[in-house]
Amino acid sequence: MSAVIATIRAEQTRYLHQLSELLRLPSVSTDASKKAEIVRTAEWMKARLLSAGCTTAEVIATDGHPIVYGEWLGAPGKPTLLVYGHYDVQPAEPLDKWISPPFEPTIRDGRIYARGASDDKGQVVIHINALEAHLKTHGSVPVNLKFLIEGEEEIGSPSLPAFVAANQQRLRCDAVVVSDTAMFSKDQPSITYGLRGLVYLQVDLFGTHGDLHSGSFGGAVVNPAMALAWLLGKLKDEKGKIKVPGFYDNVVKLTAAERRAFKSLKHSDAKFKRDLGAPELFGEAGFTTLERIWARPTLDINGLWAGFTGQGAKTVIPAEAHAKLSMRLVPNQTPAEITKKVTQAIKKLAPKSVRVEVQNLHGGDGWLAPTEHPALAAASRAVKQAFGKTPVFVREGGSIPIVANFARVLKVPCVLLGVGLNDDNLHAPNEKLDLDNFHKGIEAAALFMQEFGAQKGA
Amino acid sequence: MSAVIATIRAEQTRYLHQLSELLRLPSVSTDASKKAEIVRTAEWMKARLLSAGCTTAEVIATDGHPIVYGEWLGAPGKPTLLVYGHYDVQPAEPLDKWISPPFEPTIRDGRIYARGASDDKGQVVIHINALEAHLKTHGSVPVNLKFLIEGEEEIGSPSLPAFVAANQQRLRCDAVVVSDTAMFSKDQPSITYGLRGLVYLQVDLFGTHGDLHSGSFGGAVVNPAMALAWLLGKLKDEKGKIKVPGFYDNVVKLTAAERRAFKSLKHSDAKFKRDLGAPELFGEAGFTTLERIWARPTLDINGLWAGFTGQGAKTVIPAEAHAKLSMRLVPNQTPAEITKKVTQAIKKLAPKSVRVEVQNLHGGDGWLAPTEHPALAAASRAVKQAFGKTPVFVREGGSIPIVANFARVLKVPCVLLGVGLNDDNLHAPNEKLDLDNFHKGIEAAALFMQEFGAQKGA
Repeated sequence: MSAVIATIRAEQTRYLHQLSELLRLPSVSTDASKKAEIVRTAEWMKARLLSAGCTTAEVIATDGHPIVYGEWLGAPGKPTLLVYGHYDVQPAEPLDKWISPPFEPTIRDGRIYARGASDDKGQVVIHINALEAHLKTHGSVPVNLKFLIEGEEEIGSPSLPAFVAANQQRLRCDAVVVSDTAMFSKDQPSITYGLRGLVYLQVDLFGTHGDLHSGSFGGAVVNPAMALAWLLGKLKDEKGKIKVPGFYDNVVKLTAAERRAFKSLKHSDAKFKRDLGAPELFGEAGFTTLERIWARPTLDINGLWAGFTGQGAKTVIPAEAHAKLSMRLVPNQTPAEITKKVTQAIKKLAPKSVRVEVQNLHGGDGWLAPTEHPALAAASRAVKQAFGKTPVFVREGGSIPIVANFARVLKVPCVLLGVGLNDDNLHAPNEKLDLDNFHKGIEAAALFMQEFGAQKGA
Repeated sequence: MSAVIATIRAEQTRYLHQLSELLRLPSVSTDASKKAEIVRTAEWMKARLLSAGCTTAEVIATDGHPIVYGEWLGAPGKPTLLVYGHYDVQPAEPLDKWISPPFEPTIRDGRIYARGASDDKGQVVIHINALEAHLKTHGSVPVNLKFLIEGEEEIGSPSLPAFVAANQQRLRCDAVVVSDTAMFSKDQPSITYGLRGLVYLQVDLFGTHGDLHSGSFGGAVVNPAMALAWLLGKLKDEKGKIKVPGFYDNVVKLTAAERRAFKSLKHSDAKFKRDLGAPELFGEAGFTTLERIWARPTLDINGLWAGFTGQGAKTVIPAEAHAKLSMRLVPNQTPAEITKKVTQAIKKLAPKSVRVEVQNLHGGDGWLAPTEHPALAAASRAVKQAFGKTPVFVREGGSIPIVANFARVLKVPCVLLGVGLNDDNLHAPNEKLDLDNFHKGIEAAALFMQEFGAQKGA
């Protein structure tokens, strides 16, 4: 393996150059006007899979953004690994908060800053680079490889489940590997065995036909913005407890062993608070910070808008008020169950003086992996060799809805081999990827191919 | 007088053309980038005062937007009337809700639609046209006239009180007349004897340094948007009662006579609700709709913004959340008292997990006029002749902060001779002025000059 590692180390500059090229493409999947950029990014991915050595690669149209699929199946008798990732990114707004522009990748202090650096462009390419390094060094790879790279992850992967269901034979594999998570910390690599699910709603309140003068009408009509405040304020109490009836019914309790394992991890609330710049930490009573993020469900307002939001004072009673609201779910809460319970609570809480609509924008199941599975052990050995330290098994608060889907449909384990860090500013201004992690990540991916290739084939 | 009225009727087309010219100028005073338009509008006003027959007119610089002042003092021994109005307008946003563009005046169904049509460009010019009609018909006016037209009314008239205080001699008069209010209804003219005051605040909540991924951090940090919902929802209860400690302490109660007078007015809650398109009416228990609007204080959210407000789903915990909040005051609440009480309540209610700031954007006193004063009787006779019906004395829910200032500093009565209507869409899309009211308003203004001129001079 040391020859492959040597190849990888010799190619660092080129890998970085290629990543920069990819990060320049503004493949924002929520933005319908970026369709051409999305397609351009899919084509880039296909070309890169081929240049890395895939024998076939194609851009496959869907009802939404295209899926990129490629494969190298030159190791008959060896197991098959399905690499999943996504080439779409979150919107970059607010643009004025970026130190360097979101689609002009810039290196500062050993990190590359750009939208998508960590989520997920910089992470998905580590596996492509690892494939290339094996082929360059030995002309072969010790596993068979399939790559499935989608363009709709940030909008809830609407097209992927149908594609997976319809292509079970083509996607047949012995394990899925996904690099779209963070390591526990820079000096503590980790393998993620749990993810939260998601329900994302939009709440729209409507009052009068149009905005009203707050002097001429104030006092005699409802203010939808105030009605929204009443409503949202009652979904969660000031102690962090979600008040939606039945919300916690299906939450799987943490085991004593898990709570002990979480407590043994090096985590400092003081440092966490300082890093985030939060005046005080806040969360559900009776749980630690890690438990709150990894194993408890949430209800958060992601956006809020009503009336006049410009400079100065406009004395208007808004005709409408809106909120984006999301819930992170934990096993065994389901998106359908929580969507129904929260929607019912909202409709019940809204005053009769407003009309209320609830839109379901997207959702996905939570997921827990069997930590004792050989694929996870192989990943653990690979990460240890690349990063010089045995990884810990952790959960993550974020959601990768398709992971639960893979587990259910393909009936194989998922290995979440993430090389991001918690301060990567995902979904926020100044997203970055640590370059050490990027380069070691390529080594870990190559080593995982080696370790997993030593398993019995499918 | 019939000759002056005949002149006015012969000139209707020209008056309308001139008003359209004025309405084309986007003199939005809250918008710093519109400074040049503001100045252009002030110059337009000066030119129009001179063309109408004022012997002097000037544009006077202030720390903010300029004041236009003009006079015609050709009636020695006769009383002097000070006409006050404003040439600035509210912002026109949301632009996509306008049927015709806000600064392209358009006539539909006997109304002229444009930002400022009713508030206040279309109303202030009735007095200028009346002056011109008197001069054209008889070469003289039966009162002395002073015009004070400012450009900061929509931002709380910050420069005007100092100007009035420094120019008491120049502004000396026997009464102030202001046309910046609505008539009770199209078939019921009215004179306004009461106005509400105003306090306008901005509330800013700050959580973490930057926006956070709601998966990676949700559950362990406060969400400023949720904190804002908790806070705002507690300032007013769901029965419409304001919960700020001491808020109602200085409210002057309605007299039994006022409550009887209000009840005698033709008002239908069913029609009011239908006209506004409100699902249900809403307000403080124990008061009628007119009492709620005219004689009770309010607390309203005018704007709300936080996090992601674009299309689709962005899973972010916002770093900040903001609200514009205003209170309409009634005598004897003062802006200073209410600013202090509301600010204290906000700071007390905000959770420690956020940092809170409160900015005071503007304010003004409420006002009540003595309905028995001869100036109000003269206005009543003029309105009766122009509109064919005796006006009723009403209050208005809106604020004209400078009116209380005139009463206090110049020590003369203010006559609120408004010719707007309640459905004029002030501060909202599709603002309009009824053309019948515009033309009859010019006649009423001319008749008021006549009636007031018959009073004993200063």
